[in-house]
Amino acid sequence: MDSVSIIGMISVATAGITIAIGSVGPALGEGRAIAQALAAIAQQPDEAGTISRTLFVGLAMIESTAIYCFVVSMILIFANPFWDHVIAAGG
Amino acid sequence: MDSVSIIGMISVATAGITIAIGSVGPALGEGRAIAQALAAIAQQPDEAGTISRTLFVGLAMIESTAIYCFVVSMILIFANPFWDHVIAAGG
Amino acid sequence: MDSVSIIGMISVATAGITIAIGSVGPALGEGRAIAQALAAIAQQPDEAGTISRTLFVGLAMIESTAIYCFVVSMILIFANPFWDHVIAAGG
Amino acid sequence: MDSVSIIGMISVATAGITIAIGSVGPALGEGRAIAQALAAIAQQPDEAGTISRTLFVGLAMIESTAIYCFVVSMILIFANPFWDHVIAAGG
Amino acid sequence: MDSVSIIGMISVATAGITIAIGSVGPALGEGRAIAQALAAIAQQPDEAGTISRTLFVGLAMIESTAIYCFVVSMILIFANPFWDHVIAAGG
Amino acid sequence: MDSVSIIGMISVATAGITIAIGSVGPALGEGRAIAQALAAIAQQPDEAGTISRTLFVGLAMIESTAIYCFVVSMILIFANPFWDHVIAAGG
Amino acid sequence: MDSVSIIGMISVATAGITIAIGSVGPALGEGRAIAQALAAIAQQPDEAGTISRTLFVGLAMIESTAIYCFVVSMILIFANPFWDHVIAAGG
Amino acid sequence: MDSVSIIGMISVATAGITIAIGSVGPALGEGRAIAQALAAIAQQPDEAGTISRTLFVGLAMIESTAIYCFVVSMILIFANPFWDHVIAAGG
Amino acid sequence: MDSVSIIGMISVATAGITIAIGSVGPALGEGRAIAQALAAIAQQPDEAGTISRTLFVGLAMIESTAIYCFVVSMILIFANPFWDHVIAAGG
Amino acid sequence: MDSVSIIGMISVATAGITIAIGSVGPALGEGRAIAQALAAIAQQPDEAGTISRTLFVGLAMIESTAIYCFVVSMILIFANPFWDHVIAAGG
Amino acid sequence: MDSVSIIGMISVATAGITIAIGSVGPALGEGRAIAQALAAIAQQPDEAGTISRTLFVGLAMIESTAIYCFVVSMILIFANPFWDHVIAAGG
Amino acid sequence: MDSVSIIGMISVATAGITIAIGSVGPALGEGRAIAQALAAIAQQPDEAGTISRTLFVGLAMIESTAIYCFVVSMILIFANPFWDHVIAAGG
Amino acid sequence: MDSVSIIGMISVATAGITIAIGSVGPALGEGRAIAQALAAIAQQPDEAGTISRTLFVGLAMIESTAIYCFVVSMILIFANPFWDHVIAAGG
Amino acid sequence: MDSVSIIGMISVATAGITIAIGSVGPALGEGRAIAQALAAIAQQPDEAGTISRTLFVGLAMIESTAIYCFVVSMILIFANPFWDHVIAAGG
Repeated sequence: MDSVSIIGMISVATAGITIAIGSVGPALGEGRAIAQALAAIAQQPDEAGTISRTLFVGLAMIESTAIYCFVVSMILIFANPFWDHVIAAGG
Repeated sequence: MDSVSIIGMISVATAGITIAIGSVGPALGEGRAIAQALAAIAQQPDEAGTISRTLFVGLAMIESTAIYCFVVSMILIFANPFWDHVIAAGG
Repeated sequence: MDSVSIIGMISVATAGITIAIGSVGPALGEGRAIAQALAAIAQQPDEAGTISRTLFVGLAMIESTAIYCFVVSMILIFANPFWDHVIAAGG
Repeated sequence: MDSVSIIGMISVATAGITIAIGSVGPALGEGRAIAQALAAIAQQPDEAGTISRTLFVGLAMIESTAIYCFVVSMILIFANPFWDHVIAAGG
Repeated sequence: MDSVSIIGMISVATAGITIAIGSVGPALGEGRAIAQALAAIAQQPDEAGTISRTLFVGLAMIESTAIYCFVVSMILIFANPFWDHVIAAGG
Repeated sequence: MDSVSIIGMISVATAGITIAIGSVGPALGEGRAIAQALAAIAQQPDEAGTISRTLFVGLAMIESTAIYCFVVSMILIFANPFWDHVIAAGG
Repeated sequence: MDSVSIIGMISVATAGITIAIGSVGPALGEGRAIAQALAAIAQQPDEAGTISRTLFVGLAMIESTAIYCFVVSMILIFANPFWDHVIAAGG
Repeated sequence: MDSVSIIGMISVATAGITIAIGSVGPALGEGRAIAQALAAIAQQPDEAGTISRTLFVGLAMIESTAIYCFVVSMILIFANPFWDHVIAAGG
Repeated sequence: MDSVSIIGMISVATAGITIAIGSVGPALGEGRAIAQALAAIAQQPDEAGTISRTLFVGLAMIESTAIYCFVVSMILIFANPFWDHVIAAGG
Repeated sequence: MDSVSIIGMISVATAGITIAIGSVGPALGEGRAIAQALAAIAQQPDEAGTISRTLFVGLAMIESTAIYCFVVSMILIFANPFWDHVIAAGG
Repeated sequence: MDSVSIIGMISVATAGITIAIGSVGPALGEGRAIAQALAAIAQQPDEAGTISRTLFVGLAMIESTAIYCFVVSMILIFANPFWDHVIAAGG
Repeated sequence: MDSVSIIGMISVATAGITIAIGSVGPALGEGRAIAQALAAIAQQPDEAGTISRTLFVGLAMIESTAIYCFVVSMILIFANPFWDHVIAAGG
Repeated sequence: MDSVSIIGMISVATAGITIAIGSVGPALGEGRAIAQALAAIAQQPDEAGTISRTLFVGLAMIESTAIYCFVVSMILIFANPFWDHVIAAGG
Repeated sequence: MDSVSIIGMISVATAGITIAIGSVGPALGEGRAIAQALAAIAQQPDEAGTISRTLFVGLAMIESTAIYCFVVSMILIFANPFWDHVIAAGG
């Protein structure tokens, strides 16, 4: 196999696997946080504002790890320096 | 195997695996959040509005990780730059 | 192996695996949500309407991740651009 | 191996694995939902009607993911476009 | 290996694995449902009739996923279109 | 390897694996159901008859999935159509 | 490798693996049932007779799945039709 | 590799793996049963006799699955019909 | 394969896997911490300030492990000394 | 590789793996039984004698499964009939 | 493959895997510690100072294991003695 | 590879793996037993003597399974009959 | 591959894997110990001194297992006798 | 590959894996024991002395399994009889 095929193949596979695995943890973590937030609101309705605010800051933190994966995935598809090199090299 | 076969093969496989694995986490996370929301409504019916609103914002956050996977999967099938390159190269 | 065999083989395998893995998460997540909904109705029968409504919106959200997988699976079997290309190329 | 063997082999294997894996999640999810339904009826017999109705709608949702797998499995055995192509090609 | 060996080999292996894996989920799900049914009867003996009826409908739903696997397994052994083709082809 | 070796080998291996894996789920599911039945009898001795009857129907349902595996295993050893074919073919 | 080696090798390996895996589920399931039986006796000593009777019937059901595995294992070692064939064939 | 090496190698490996895996389930199951027996004695000392008797019958049932594995393991080492055949064949 | 292909391929694959695996732990850990923070606020609203402060310091500690992974991933894509060497070597 | 190397190699590997895997189950099972015994003594000090006696009989049962593994391991190292054969054969 | 490719390849892969796996344990452990700290503050606000101090010492201990991994990962990328050797050897 | 390399290689690998895997079970089992012993002492300080005695006998039983692994590991390194044979054979 | 590449490659890979796997257990164990320490302080503030002292001794014990891994990892990178030998041998 | 490379390679790999896996069990077991010790001190401060003493004896027992692994790991690196042999043999 030539360089273009190798780099292309591994880039496609990695881009998909990265976001696929990277979505499992955040989804489960967010599910847990939201579930507890709802329980907390039900238990202490007067604090719904504080709870929501803390929840959304927390969700942003968790979501950030999914974003890291999505960014790497997009870089590998649309701004892949290794692919650019082998294409430029006439690969 | 020539470049077209390699890139095509890996794109098909990755597109499927990405959305398959990527659906497990969000589905479980959403299931947990909804389950707790229902328990919260049963416990504090007067806060059903607040609980629903928080739930739907949360579900949107979780769903977003599934959407990332679906987007990558669709890109790999219908807008794959690696495939476009090898086709253009007469692969 | 020629291109037709390769692309056909991987498309068949991926189509099946995608929906197979993709059905595990939603099924478990929906089972959890429904189980809690029933417990909530038993605990607070007067809110059965609100609980059902929230449940069905939630189930639709969860089901959507299974639908993504089913859509990708169907695309790979009946509207596969990689297969169309290799067939058109006389593969 | 010729195309007929390859496509046939992978179709057989995928058809079985798809429904095998695809039956695990729904079976567990339905078991959970039914178990909770029975507990709910024991706790609140007067709501047996509402509980049953919600249960059956929920079971239909869960069962649908198993049906998706069964459909894909049947398509791969009896209406496989890749197999039809290689047979038509004299494979 | 010739086509007959390949298709035969993979059909035997898939038929067994399909029903083997396919029996795990339903068995566990049914065990859970039955266990809860017994607990419900012990808690609310007067509702034994309603509980039994709901249980048996539920068991039928769960058993259906095992039946799907058994059907696919039997098709692969006794009515396998791929095997019929390679035999007819003089394989 | 000739056809007889291949089909024989895979039949032996599949027959064993099928019943081995197929015994795990039913054994665990039955263990759970029986355990709960005993707890139910201890809690509500007057309903021992109803509990036993429901238990035995349930055990039969669970055992049926083990039976499916045993049947497939026996078919693969003693009534294997693929083996009969390759033997008849002078394999 | 000749047929005798192949069939012999796979028969030895399968016979062992079958009973090894097949003993895990029943042992765990029986352990659970017995543990609950002891708890039930401690809680309701007057029902020790009924509990024991139900336990022993249940253990027999669970043990049956281990027996299936042991039977298949013994058949593969001492009454293996595939081995008999290759020996008779002068393998 | 000649037949003696193959059959010998696989017999050694299988004999060890069989008893190794086969000891995990019974050990865990017995541990659970004994633990509950001790809790039951502490809770209801007057029933120590009944509890012990039930426990020992149960342990014998669980131990039987370990014995099956040990028997198969010993057969494979000291009374292996496949090994006897290849030795007799001058292997 | 030449050095450029090898180093490029492994860099792409490692960059993706690193951030993918590295996002699972932090996401789950943060989800747990946030869930407990919300429960704590609901239980002791007067301490919301202290709780939030401790939570954010803790989240920063957890996030740092995700950051390590992201940093390594970015180094492997954009500042990879091994890739620089093989490119400089005319690879 | 000659017979001596093959049989020696697999005997060494199996002897170690057998006792390694075979120690996990008994160690965990014994840990559970002992833990419960200590809880039972703390709860019912007057029954310490009965509890200890039952515990030691139970530990002996569990330890027996570890002993089986150790025996097989020692046989494979110091009284291996397959090794004796290949050595005697001038292997 | 020449030495430079081999050592480079394995260094890249190991550097990523090390920090990826190494971030899972600390993230989960810190998440657990922080969650309990928040629960402790909510339960005993007067001890918030002692709790925070103990928490931060503990987090530092846990973080140290992540730091070990990060250090090894950085050494492998920027101060790898094996890479230096093969480069110096004109690899 | 010659016999010395093969036997040496596998002996090194097995010796390490044996004690590595063999330390997991005992460590967890002992941890559980000790944890419960401490809880028991806290609950019933007057029985600290009986509890300690039972604990130490139990720990010795659990430790014995680790000792078996260590013994096998040492035999494979320092008193390996297979290694002695191949060395004596001039391997 | 020559000796330098082999020993170098395996040293790099092992050094990373050792500390990566070796950090998981200590991090989780320390997380658990710290979490319980905080709960204990909240429950019994007067004993904070004793609890802290016991905690730090315990953390040192747990950290020691991580240190073992780090030491082995550093030895493999900077004081590897196998690497020294092959370098000295002109590898 | 020559003997020196093989034995060296496998010794490096085994030394690392042994201590890596061998640190997981002890770390978790010690974490559990320490956590319970702290809970016990909080519950029964007057027995802190007895609890600490029992804890430290127990930790020593658990640590011993980690020590076994560390010893084997050090033997494989610095006092490896197999390595000494192949070096002496001029390997």
